[in-house]
Amino acid sequence: MSDQNEVTYQSVSWDDDSLFIIDQTHLPEREINLQLSSAGQVWDAIKKLKVRGAPAIGIAGAYGFYLGIRDLQAENYDSFEREASRIADYLNSARPTAVNLSWALERIKNTLYAHKNEPVQKLKEIALETAITIHNEDRRLCKSIGEKGLEIVPENANILTHCNTGGLATSQYGTAFSVIFHAHRDGKLKLAWVDETRPLLQGSRLTAWEMQKAGIPFKLIVDSAAASVIKAGLADLIVTGADRISANGDTANKIGTYNLAVLAHHHNIPFYIAAPYSTIDLSLETGDDIVIEERESDEVTSFGSKPTAPDKTETWNPAFDVTPSSLITGIITEKGIIKPDYKKNLRKMMDSREEFA
Amino acid sequence: MSDQNEVTYQSVSWDDDSLFIIDQTHLPEREINLQLSSAGQVWDAIKKLKVRGAPAIGIAGAYGFYLGIRDLQAENYDSFEREASRIADYLNSARPTAVNLSWALERIKNTLYAHKNEPVQKLKEIALETAITIHNEDRRLCKSIGEKGLEIVPENANILTHCNTGGLATSQYGTAFSVIFHAHRDGKLKLAWVDETRPLLQGSRLTAWEMQKAGIPFKLIVDSAAASVIKAGLADLIVTGADRISANGDTANKIGTYNLAVLAHHHNIPFYIAAPYSTIDLSLETGDDIVIEERESDEVTSFGSKPTAPDKTETWNPAFDVTPSSLITGIITEKGIIKPDYKKNLRKMMDSREEFA
Repeated sequence: MSDQNEVTYQSVSWDDDSLFIIDQTHLPEREINLQLSSAGQVWDAIKKLKVRGAPAIGIAGAYGFYLGIRDLQAENYDSFEREASRIADYLNSARPTAVNLSWALERIKNTLYAHKNEPVQKLKEIALETAITIHNEDRRLCKSIGEKGLEIVPENANILTHCNTGGLATSQYGTAFSVIFHAHRDGKLKLAWVDETRPLLQGSRLTAWEMQKAGIPFKLIVDSAAASVIKAGLADLIVTGADRISANGDTANKIGTYNLAVLAHHHNIPFYIAAPYSTIDLSLETGDDIVIEERESDEVTSFGSKPTAPDKTETWNPAFDVTPSSLITGIITEKGIIKPDYKKNLRKMMDSREEFA
Repeated sequence: MSDQNEVTYQSVSWDDDSLFIIDQTHLPEREINLQLSSAGQVWDAIKKLKVRGAPAIGIAGAYGFYLGIRDLQAENYDSFEREASRIADYLNSARPTAVNLSWALERIKNTLYAHKNEPVQKLKEIALETAITIHNEDRRLCKSIGEKGLEIVPENANILTHCNTGGLATSQYGTAFSVIFHAHRDGKLKLAWVDETRPLLQGSRLTAWEMQKAGIPFKLIVDSAAASVIKAGLADLIVTGADRISANGDTANKIGTYNLAVLAHHHNIPFYIAAPYSTIDLSLETGDDIVIEERESDEVTSFGSKPTAPDKTETWNPAFDVTPSSLITGIITEKGIIKPDYKKNLRKMMDSREEFA
């Protein structure tokens, strides 16, 4: 196996007491690595989408927190905690709706509280250790998703995917991307089909870039050509990520995912979701409970500063769609493949997840 | 009914001894009307895609032919014919694969031949009359398609469409656009959903522009959002145009059309094709006989000069897909709605089409 096959891209890395990220706003044209040495720089990178993808934002925020408290002068836990909370609030304000960001910051704060009797210098070390733990956990989850996913990949597989689910959005291997990456590494992949993923083109801008980096053979298509690929028998299965999975297995993911699930059903090929436990929200009974973000028209009516539709054109621009669990062959998690009955099996998986973490 | 509801855009018009076209290369940003007074100007407009859409190109070419022969000095039919043929060949070279262009030029030449004993001045008049006839025939066909199509439009209809099928591509009303236009004029339309139609965005650039011009209420969506529109019960039927229909009803049309047909089938809503007789090719037994043009990668990997995918990204970029007739509820033609058995009914329609023309 060549070295190339071992490469995945790490959008976020910690080295030499600094956070390194790739500035995703310049992809795929230019690969610019940024060294971030302060909470302010991390805030800016999150705010300006230089780092994006829910898990990646959480990890960056965790390191940003450490960078913010690293040089704090404090006599005791209480005065330390006041300043540290201010820094956490500040970082969280960069993407207030990003659940992973607030989750990561809360987790570090809770860990520090559990060690409140330690000296301040020790608390700082604990903060960094917790950030590294969050990072490593995500990497381990992603790797495990890819390895468990191998089970459903036939030999010489053609796999179709949507949006960006790789190392740019997570810590390293990604989710659906991890399945494709591991299939390739094990010599089971013939070709990956990459949907460009309108309107923001995460497929062509980011996934294609990650596939090239990893040496994975792929072809890029416009989203509406997936139907022709599948009809021609050129895709053996579909794997996508997930933004949110409800208790019954209904799955919200990037707009276009439901379309693929219908196509898979019509052509009788498997349709899989690949996602870590953090995506599963048992408080949502079905997909009907998932609120779908509707985004601005200009994502559809212009490209950069160039209009692509007449002035005042109205759009409907939902960021996500919901795929009913009846169209989902299985959900690939870090603990294995969940199959129907999803309601029962997702609950079982969530109840036992502590064993894994 | 307001005046606004009566407007359709005419991409090609004849007035004051000149051909007027809208320069489609500047839409939707700017509406630039061009007055063309020579065959050379028409050649340039066709070559540079200032006028596009198979029927519109044929009509422009017919008028261009007249503009080319208008000032010819010739003693008799033979010397006139030599020069006229040279002009026809020249015009045809602007888009040699456009069937409607060569068809229109041949038709005028044949008509002139049938009147070879007339004086040259009379032949010139006949050429212009034939161009006007071709133009009027197309307008009549398109109008009839829209009127016949009303039959399948319920009250308060939400109609989803794909690509550009309006007056910019034809003489006036278009095909699928004509159905939507007439539904709106008769007060039967609630909303039109317009797919942006990647990669070349004919939906957002051209159809949205035509809908605005005609005062038709519409919303623009990315192609992959059509599934969500349909799932939400917000589209009552789908109507698209056709590039080629085989003897059994299988239909080639812009990439993404087949995807819509699968969605319509899955959600149990009607899926219609709207097309004139010239689209039906009984020499093709099934859709398998239709050759699908594969286009260059740069349509998918860049927007203008801006790359949207990494350098050297491979794509598969078919311009069309084929929808099997089993997924087509009906074909709206100028003679009425063709329903299955398509093989029998298309043949019958083609055999009787002379009655209409």
